[in-house]
Amino acid sequence: MASRKFWHDLLFIGLILLVLGWEVSPLQAQSGKASSGDSPIAIVIHGGAGTIRRESMTAAMDSAYRAKLAEALQAGYAVLKKGGSSLDAVEAAIMVMEDSPLFNAGKGAVFTRAGTNEMDASIMDGKTLNAGAVGGVMHIKNPIHLARLVMEKTPHVLLVGEGAERFALAQGIALVPQAYFYTKRRWQSHLRGLERERARRQKQQKGGGTVGAVALDRQGNLAAGTSTGGLTNKMSGRIGDSPIIGAGTYANNRTCGVSGTGQGEYFIRLAIAHSISELMECQGLSVKEAAELVIMKKLTELGGSGGVIALDAHGRVAWPFNTEGMYRGYIGPDGKMVIKIYKDE
Amino acid sequence: MASRKFWHDLLFIGLILLVLGWEVSPLQAQSGKASSGDSPIAIVIHGGAGTIRRESMTAAMDSAYRAKLAEALQAGYAVLKKGGSSLDAVEAAIMVMEDSPLFNAGKGAVFTRAGTNEMDASIMDGKTLNAGAVGGVMHIKNPIHLARLVMEKTPHVLLVGEGAERFALAQGIALVPQAYFYTKRRWQSHLRGLERERARRQKQQKGGGTVGAVALDRQGNLAAGTSTGGLTNKMSGRIGDSPIIGAGTYANNRTCGVSGTGQGEYFIRLAIAHSISELMECQGLSVKEAAELVIMKKLTELGGSGGVIALDAHGRVAWPFNTEGMYRGYIGPDGKMVIKIYKDE
Repeated sequence: MASRKFWHDLLFIGLILLVLGWEVSPLQAQSGKASSGDSPIAIVIHGGAGTIRRESMTAAMDSAYRAKLAEALQAGYAVLKKGGSSLDAVEAAIMVMEDSPLFNAGKGAVFTRAGTNEMDASIMDGKTLNAGAVGGVMHIKNPIHLARLVMEKTPHVLLVGEGAERFALAQGIALVPQAYFYTKRRWQSHLRGLERERARRQKQQKGGGTVGAVALDRQGNLAAGTSTGGLTNKMSGRIGDSPIIGAGTYANNRTCGVSGTGQGEYFIRLAIAHSISELMECQGLSVKEAAELVIMKKLTELGGSGGVIALDAHGRVAWPFNTEGMYRGYIGPDGKMVIKIYKDE
Repeated sequence: MASRKFWHDLLFIGLILLVLGWEVSPLQAQSGKASSGDSPIAIVIHGGAGTIRRESMTAAMDSAYRAKLAEALQAGYAVLKKGGSSLDAVEAAIMVMEDSPLFNAGKGAVFTRAGTNEMDASIMDGKTLNAGAVGGVMHIKNPIHLARLVMEKTPHVLLVGEGAERFALAQGIALVPQAYFYTKRRWQSHLRGLERERARRQKQQKGGGTVGAVALDRQGNLAAGTSTGGLTNKMSGRIGDSPIIGAGTYANNRTCGVSGTGQGEYFIRLAIAHSISELMECQGLSVKEAAELVIMKKLTELGGSGGVIALDAHGRVAWPFNTEGMYRGYIGPDGKMVIKIYKDE
């Protein structure tokens, strides 16, 4: 009798777990840490917005970009699938893009007017509103990782320049020489920019290639991060929106996570990322409505260009941009991957 | 008859002008530039929030602070009265406080852990949403003036460190040695801080003494600015909320101007200044309701301390803070000056 009751109880508990949708994945069981979360998981990334035209892209470049975006998405998604945190997923996805010469972040960062590479990055945790950022770093292979350390190992949010690099050294991060960041392509835009500047005062500096990621983990936590080399031929010491929490990056579990790319000065003046979050909270807009209002109306009316990726706590994605293209991709709650480059796809 | 009609008409016109409240001040007549604006004018300033207790303040210190706050207010108000711009008024008021050793900005800035002075400042124009800021500058007597130049003479919003100082030199600003910023009082808090740090890991670094101003000019334009030396014994390279547009400073003619003071990291994470503006726009809150919601609820719930000054386009002032005191003062549309220090006054 006791044995029949035992099996009856076990069946009953099993049914309840099934109804609650509680899943114990093999990996979780392996690590011994069962996740209590059952949130849908999702990740969205960008590799910069700008003048990206189908006709000026070779087939080889097109596929190289799509392949690297897929690799970055998969790196982040693998973390989420294992029950890892959205912060880890964002960092993993961005590091893939920082390590690629295709994007204007880490390896492949653009040059300042002075011929140096000065990088900015930030990361934010939507659960706690903790955040970390670095600005104007010149010898850090993965600025997004240093931003994460600023968040976790200092009482501060933003460290810049030499102070940030001294902190990196103290954390055991090896500095890399400026030569590491060199790519022929970015050096040539630097030279072309200087030439144009000599010819006539350049009105608009070109950005493009900033990278970012927003992820939602099984615990329902959103995180967002952004990493960039900034504008080609920016003044030395210029900090854009990417390391500015509220401008280029924001995350709040109650609303959404956002990462931006474009003319940073406009993103700062409009506090673009915070604005999208606040419109959702204040006016009850969806992530799509809020992001489109801020990019297609507010940013466009002020004369700025760029775009954002945004993800809400249900895994819904928005990625409005007012430029000709934006390197972008996501893996939604259904596990399907979507990658796009141009406006008309 | 013609003469009687003339006097009658003149009286009639005079009465209309009186009804419209049009005032031609002697100075406007003198400069020959009659202002077309008829907005009320107002200015509000702060000299930092923190542990400011009546019992730990000498009578001499109390009056020294009140006198300097009055001087700063009058410097800004004189600009507005002449029909000058709110940007000029904000800059004038803040420069008085930067030049005084009483406040943690310019002369009197606190020391970093490394024993240096590294200052941050920003300014924003509520009419155009243009903004300028500098971070981590070490040889600039008036960081608020350099922030203004970043706004007006570069395509950027934020310049930091050596890049910002090279720009200052190019603009003809003389650099000052670090010794200029030395005050015995701040050096002693630096030493006390290091001692406490040796004794046990310091949990909370002390700020206090950041300065800021918000002004409304006759044209109805709002401007806001903030200047600081940051936190005592902050890490070298740390940038707080003061040069972050949206965190420590914001201005938008449609809503309000804001300048903050307190634990900068919390101000960044909540995008405090932008949040107040956005709540007014989104939910139709008054400047007082929005500022109190953000400081007394959002900031307090996250565990942060500090305060803001805020001014709307009608000249209405709010200055909530959750600390024991905040050096603060305003001159409202009625021309009366109010100066306060403690919570209970």
